[in-house]
Amino acid sequence: MRVRVHPLPLDPLPSAEVMMVVDVIRATSTAVMFLEAGAGALWLTASLEAARALRQNGELLAGEVGGLRPEGFDFGNSPREALGAELKGRTLIHATTNGTKAAHKAAQVAREVLLASLLNAPSAVRLAASLGREVAILCAGKEGQVGMDDLYTAGVLAQGLVAEGFEPVGDGVQIALHLAQKPALPVLRASEAALALEREGLGEDVDFCARLGFSERVPRLLERRGEALIFG
Amino acid sequence: MRVRVHPLPLDPLPSAEVMMVVDVIRATSTAVMFLEAGAGALWLTASLEAARALRQNGELLAGEVGGLRPEGFDFGNSPREALGAELKGRTLIHATTNGTKAAHKAAQVAREVLLASLLNAPSAVRLAASLGREVAILCAGKEGQVGMDDLYTAGVLAQGLVAEGFEPVGDGVQIALHLAQKPALPVLRASEAALALEREGLGEDVDFCARLGFSERVPRLLERRGEALIFG
Repeated sequence: MRVRVHPLPLDPLPSAEVMMVVDVIRATSTAVMFLEAGAGALWLTASLEAARALRQNGELLAGEVGGLRPEGFDFGNSPREALGAELKGRTLIHATTNGTKAAHKAAQVAREVLLASLLNAPSAVRLAASLGREVAILCAGKEGQVGMDDLYTAGVLAQGLVAEGFEPVGDGVQIALHLAQKPALPVLRASEAALALEREGLGEDVDFCARLGFSERVPRLLERRGEALIFG
Repeated sequence: MRVRVHPLPLDPLPSAEVMMVVDVIRATSTAVMFLEAGAGALWLTASLEAARALRQNGELLAGEVGGLRPEGFDFGNSPREALGAELKGRTLIHATTNGTKAAHKAAQVAREVLLASLLNAPSAVRLAASLGREVAILCAGKEGQVGMDDLYTAGVLAQGLVAEGFEPVGDGVQIALHLAQKPALPVLRASEAALALEREGLGEDVDFCARLGFSERVPRLLERRGEALIFG
């Protein structure tokens, strides 16, 4: 049983049985909270336009422009906002650039794709370990740059898998494991993703994203429909 | 005064006044030792063929195939071997894939390009700080993957620049600074680059590459001649 970490979704991405996609500030944290709030399905799309085009009857739209909820959308990309919603059985169409791009790459090379964050890390580790012996953690990064928040989260997930008997393989997982020895909140807050949110007055979302094990929900890729990836 | 770290030479590479290129196991460590041993100039080329083609009269060839000295070459890519050589005034043509690729990218976006390693880290930091106010550290990586050995060395260089009053900017430098809090030898030895050398019986080179401040020589890009980058 082996675990690797890819700090960025670069080509060619090595295959794995199970791939956990991490965009912790905030796409995969928010995705977890949509399921926690009762959503029946989560469709990931790469753009606001794609999300609008997919809406047919009653789906809710989530996304962001500069950190905020776009015109005509039901939700921003905020895990705190998702927590307070009543979404029982509803379908969420969630537009997110870096996270969706990474999830598409994962879907091309892995049998199982999960969305992971600190919020669902213990449950994501248990599910990944039950689904395969070769697990990879794919960091979404920000516009092609390595994100410290994602790499830290990858390290926490890798710690969990190592505790389950997985062997860490490669430099990516070792860098992540070193980073994960630090406490979550100062590392996350110092990341560029967090600083950008702070500037928009959304710093509380960063603190929320650091709450380890808040949810047991793990979005799992069920199917692909056109450009959308459907998780449940 | 600001310092950034790029964990990989990805496009587009942001510009900087001074860029320090790191391929610590072993290209930039060996380059430093060639100058330390008295070489008058060091030509970096991306392939063995390019190195052979550039030899005109009396230049020495260095390079590697699977860690070892290629047929017809004077040196492998070993800093220990370079240390023992008498190279007074000689020109070395040094073929190295990842290091040369990174140096070419650096040369496109920076006014000054230096080769850095742990061996020359204190001197490289002083020279970089004297040459500009915007310094970037570019990790060569291994075949497009982030190398823990390079990122660790980048962290040590960044520590030195921070001590000189530079502000660390971006997630790359923060990840590197966290990593550089560890002792050098165990981190370097655990890297994939080191494990590959160990398998070839060249583990002593890794220990040599970890000797902080062994040399005061800092290869500095002087000019470009065709596909070769000339350092002195």
